[in-house]
Amino acid sequence: MTTATTPPSPAAPGCAGADAPPEASATLGEFALIERFFARAPRRAGVALGNGDDCALLAPAAGMQLAVSTDMLVEGRHFLSSVRPERLGHKALAVNLSDLAACGAEPLAFTLALAMPRVDPVFLAGFAEGLFALAERHGIDLVGGDTTAGPLNLCVTVFGQVPAGSALLRSGARAGDELWVSGTLGDARLALEGFRGSVTLAGEDFESVRRAMECPQPRVALGMALRGVASAAIDVSDGFVGDLGHILRRSGVGARVELAAMPRSVVLARQPQRLQQECVLAGGDDYELLFTAPAARHDAVLAAARAGGVGVTRIGRIEAEAGVRIVDAQGAALPLRWHGYDHFA
Amino acid sequence: MTTATTPPSPAAPGCAGADAPPEASATLGEFALIERFFARAPRRAGVALGNGDDCALLAPAAGMQLAVSTDMLVEGRHFLSSVRPERLGHKALAVNLSDLAACGAEPLAFTLALAMPRVDPVFLAGFAEGLFALAERHGIDLVGGDTTAGPLNLCVTVFGQVPAGSALLRSGARAGDELWVSGTLGDARLALEGFRGSVTLAGEDFESVRRAMECPQPRVALGMALRGVASAAIDVSDGFVGDLGHILRRSGVGARVELAAMPRSVVLARQPQRLQQECVLAGGDDYELLFTAPAARHDAVLAAARAGGVGVTRIGRIEAEAGVRIVDAQGAALPLRWHGYDHFA
Repeated sequence: MTTATTPPSPAAPGCAGADAPPEASATLGEFALIERFFARAPRRAGVALGNGDDCALLAPAAGMQLAVSTDMLVEGRHFLSSVRPERLGHKALAVNLSDLAACGAEPLAFTLALAMPRVDPVFLAGFAEGLFALAERHGIDLVGGDTTAGPLNLCVTVFGQVPAGSALLRSGARAGDELWVSGTLGDARLALEGFRGSVTLAGEDFESVRRAMECPQPRVALGMALRGVASAAIDVSDGFVGDLGHILRRSGVGARVELAAMPRSVVLARQPQRLQQECVLAGGDDYELLFTAPAARHDAVLAAARAGGVGVTRIGRIEAEAGVRIVDAQGAALPLRWHGYDHFA
Repeated sequence: MTTATTPPSPAAPGCAGADAPPEASATLGEFALIERFFARAPRRAGVALGNGDDCALLAPAAGMQLAVSTDMLVEGRHFLSSVRPERLGHKALAVNLSDLAACGAEPLAFTLALAMPRVDPVFLAGFAEGLFALAERHGIDLVGGDTTAGPLNLCVTVFGQVPAGSALLRSGARAGDELWVSGTLGDARLALEGFRGSVTLAGEDFESVRRAMECPQPRVALGMALRGVASAAIDVSDGFVGDLGHILRRSGVGARVELAAMPRSVVLARQPQRLQQECVLAGGDDYELLFTAPAARHDAVLAAARAGGVGVTRIGRIEAEAGVRIVDAQGAALPLRWHGYDHFA
């Protein structure tokens, strides 16, 4: 059972599944901590100069555009104080890679700016482990950054490359397109409700959805495989309905969504209907790809999913009429009361 | 007279010299505030897609490398709560442009991630005014970003382009090179001492050095003009001695610095010698270029300074022996007790 007063679980491993050995505390200055935890030589083609000068130098391959995205993570808004440092390191990079995935870009490098109240070697060792484990899985380099004292704040900027004119945009959806989503939606929100104590989850169920919240898997390979197939794409970070709205407004279209078709985990599927709807439609923090493709490319979408190593589900279609229409299994429209997550609401 | 208890000066204008009209307060959500204060269409060649999709797309010109730098600004560390929003907007971008200047890169675009406790339209209007005034002066676009609730934190990432192989690095200084610095050093630190109440400054003297602290001018044109002339460069942000040390270690050389030659403002030159030394040698927040060039390129350096619109001063020379030797007007060595600013010290 999990309630809002559950203490941090020291048993939860990093996103790669391994525990990091705790290190002895020590006093480190700014440059020493950069050297100790973050200095690694660049190995990636496309990175001409990494960490340690005034600027990093990137050289995208000929004919490539550079895709750039930045996300800032703040304690209490994007992660809980109970999160393991390994998982926080993973998540800080993962949510940024998810933006590259939504553009179909191949990751190249990233920068990290980090404000923290004090130099905590145990935190930093774990954070760096989770960060670099994910970076290595995607073959990318940390090419620069900044560290300062201050309230805990993580700002990552990622760089990817995409053939000129091939980036997946939000603006390409057309009436008649099929609407797809990768993976499952809603587990991260269910975990948050578990932390808040508003739902009671069995231990292994909680660990499963907590992992979804703390260890999102950016759909980079899927995004790249969808180049030339998808007509529009976005990653689901602020909640399905809100993020779908970005595609619809940019594309000047509407959508019909079949609620029963929306993919959810077995854990979420055991929850009350009302909670399932809330989590799936407005949960946020999913980092799955929401995308559209012409119906004629249905099989190409399935092939891209196989290449991307993740399941995809057709959940509706794009229509000319503006707005989002969510229908139940009988085809009856549900009242639309969900909107995207607003950090200031 | 200025002491630590001096209230914020409402009379201090923005860095461009103009006051912004205050705006009525209002409740704005995250997307509305982005739209209202930060949405501008990209106009810069090299920016294929700006704000509003998952990623921005940059296309450096053929043969160009992309220079990238990121800096995070935290209240109390990088700016005081009394700073005018216009000046804060200017400074957040200026300190990043200074890194591009130190590489000799031509600015292209930037991203902004912004955490703030609440949506304050008066703050945001002023901040955006100062930010975009400087951006427009350099012809660059805001191409992406993130906003979130949280303790005030500004993270800017800048992008510039530089011909492949032409970036100014920290590693190129050679024995016999002359050592140069642009502008004057130490005023920002003197202003900080004024705010702290440890020195007493006349009103207009305080305004002058406060302007140096709050409105640094990135030496972008000078940096570009020094391509092919300077052998190494860095911007002075953490204090002269510490930043010089970065060049010396990277280049495997030492330096002899003539204290009397180091450029300082008339306001600083009226202060006690001991304070002058502290401000000039270890002040920080100067954002001047510190660079080396072969003695044979002396005239080329002066020509670059004219092209860059800023004065430069020869303050010493690079020597084979490691370490920094600071000498007074009589050639006697001063004890070296200055080091760079460390955010965690």
